[in-house]
Amino acid sequence: SASHKILLLPGDGIGPEIMAQAVKIIDWLKAERGLNVDLSEDLVGGASLAKYDVPIRDEVIAKAKAADAVLFGSVGDPAWKDVPFDRRPEVAILRLRKDLNLYANLRPAKLFDPLLSASALKPDVVRGLDLMIVRETVGGVYFGEPRGIESLPDGTKRGINTEVYTTAEIERVARVAFDLARLRSGRVCSVEKGNVMESGLLWREVVTDLHKREYSDVTLTHMLADNCAMQLVRDPRQFDVMVTGNLFGDLLSDLASMLTGSLGMLPSATLGTPVGSDKRAALYEPIHGSAPDIAGKGIANPLAQILSLAMLLRYSLERGEDAALIEQAVSDVLASGLRTADIAAAGDTPVGTEEMGAAVLKAL
Amino acid sequence: SASHKILLLPGDGIGPEIMAQAVKIIDWLKAERGLNVDLSEDLVGGASLAKYDVPIRDEVIAKAKAADAVLFGSVGDPAWKDVPFDRRPEVAILRLRKDLNLYANLRPAKLFDPLLSASALKPDVVRGLDLMIVRETVGGVYFGEPRGIESLPDGTKRGINTEVYTTAEIERVARVAFDLARLRSGRVCSVEKGNVMESGLLWREVVTDLHKREYSDVTLTHMLADNCAMQLVRDPRQFDVMVTGNLFGDLLSDLASMLTGSLGMLPSATLGTPVGSDKRAALYEPIHGSAPDIAGKGIANPLAQILSLAMLLRYSLERGEDAALIEQAVSDVLASGLRTADIAAAGDTPVGTEEMGAAVLKAL
Ligand SMILES: CC(C)[C@H](C(=O)O)[C@@H](O)C(=O)O
Ligand SMILES: CC(C)[C@H](C(=O)O)[C@@H](O)C(=O)O
Repeated sequence: SASHKILLLPGDGIGPEIMAQAVKIIDWLKAERGLNVDLSEDLVGGASLAKYDVPIRDEVIAKAKAADAVLFGSVGDPAWKDVPFDRRPEVAILRLRKDLNLYANLRPAKLFDPLLSASALKPDVVRGLDLMIVRETVGGVYFGEPRGIESLPDGTKRGINTEVYTTAEIERVARVAFDLARLRSGRVCSVEKGNVMESGLLWREVVTDLHKREYSDVTLTHMLADNCAMQLVRDPRQFDVMVTGNLFGDLLSDLASMLTGSLGMLPSATLGTPVGSDKRAALYEPIHGSAPDIAGKGIANPLAQILSLAMLLRYSLERGEDAALIEQAVSDVLASGLRTADIAAAGDTPVGTEEMGAAVLKAL
Repeated sequence: SASHKILLLPGDGIGPEIMAQAVKIIDWLKAERGLNVDLSEDLVGGASLAKYDVPIRDEVIAKAKAADAVLFGSVGDPAWKDVPFDRRPEVAILRLRKDLNLYANLRPAKLFDPLLSASALKPDVVRGLDLMIVRETVGGVYFGEPRGIESLPDGTKRGINTEVYTTAEIERVARVAFDLARLRSGRVCSVEKGNVMESGLLWREVVTDLHKREYSDVTLTHMLADNCAMQLVRDPRQFDVMVTGNLFGDLLSDLASMLTGSLGMLPSATLGTPVGSDKRAALYEPIHGSAPDIAGKGIANPLAQILSLAMLLRYSLERGEDAALIEQAVSDVLASGLRTADIAAAGDTPVGTEEMGAAVLKAL
């Protein structure tokens, strides 16, 4: 088969440690399953700042555009907290999303049954939880102009950001949610704050119209973002597919993933089509962050990174079988009782990043 | 003692039903405890739209300004979901906050021990939970200009809102949080999204500076809003006082209150000083909304409204003893096992709004 190009961007904190485990699995797939990939790797975030003085080089953006998929670790490093705003490590992921026009971030919150006890929620509230948040990722207050910090005449300041959503931006991400719902339960809950924000009001209108026109077979509900934050705690299993803007999606998907008690297990995919191209672009990354507090200790959970690789194989390389193999290996390892520190219960002896990676490899 | 002016604004949905129970307690305080108040009542929200075609009349704003305190029910009514944006029921509470310059909304998330089983969280995660979110309420994306929905040349639309915070706006609400922390645990966690939004970056700077200048005895930490949403689920007892902007405060305080499993129990106070006045203004309201689904059924929990009255007595009328009496009566009633439907466990026979109100009155 033709060679696929994958760009690896491990980033900061625990990123490189967990990426190394995913790479071992890629190597195994090459050796054992005839996977034909052309891997390249580059620096982003604090790691790129340290070497190149910028959070991401244009060259890396170009490589990402040329790749079939990007496997991303995570960015964010307190060492760079005092750099100017446009040079902070997070710019790397924000630019990748924007420049590749990766507008739909699929964030599953799925409870792995052997990890039920790791959730802070009562078992009856979360057992079997499996929802998917579709978060818009190239618009909203993350990118709206004007933005910045202005000086006022009296020497004090004013910080400004702009939340903007257009019909087209809302429609394309809603479409992703409706399409997904058709493959799942047939239900979408759209989340905004349209009782206070006009951008939310437009969001609701556009989703409602699209639903009427093209997706009336799907059940659509609407929920205000504050109520949604509550409902996710009260009864998360009422949800299947959810769709929301960039900022609400940031908070709500982190909240939802924490309900599972297994943040270190959850992968995500961000999909889109670069402007002026008709090639689909995609970036896969763990939901968790760079966890600087445990970086370098060899104790991070590599499973979210490994499961992100599985998503990449399924959605970008059409290698669903390989993906299923990996997912099964992860299940087996969990069922065998192996736990990294983040998912260990009282009494478990946690294993490190390497051991967990090796166990998945062995289970393959 | 001189007569205090209290304006009652029951609003929509369950508002009037639960307000009626608070009024009975006011009557008892007048008869038994020498409370000297001058009560007046008016319509807001959907109720005002129905009679006056506006969500709140200027006359009501003027009455609120003249009052020593406002006791508010809640607004929001699906019957008015298709009115123009500036006439929706929610405008009532937004205008009250803005016109009275009520900039600091104090939202406790306190777990009532007899209700431990009502929480979706494991008992060990929330036992004894008692945190306070100080939410900014007259700024941010709720009020920033420009805002609105524009038509684009191709017939599609664009929704815009603006998040704005000035040094002065951030400082005054942070001051409320620091002052509160001195009365509690001495810890404040400030929450923003300064890794993505300049307004959040300014927020962090201003809170940090104020802390250095005037509150270095208080322990200050900073947290990103997405991480905060996770931490509230993972380990909410790590927090004591939290301070954040209008929009994050909306989501995070609703999330925090749901952790307690007793949303129907939680009061809030919104404090400020009307521009051009040096009288402190204050509005007290339940954290829960108008709950249109159960309105008129006589089953709503009146305790959040009754506890809002207790806060009013303590903070606006300096009647701490009366407040303590009410709080004790509420505790006694709960300890006796009485439950409205929202806090009933399997096996409990829930009582209605009137019965619960009567029980508190009797316990006084
Ligand atoms: C790192 C940061 C810019 C990013 C975001 O806010 O989108 C992260 O929190 C995420 O959710 O992927
Ligand atoms: C009713 C609505 C405008 C209000 C808000 O968003 O502030 C409510 O959700 C609240 O939190 O008090």
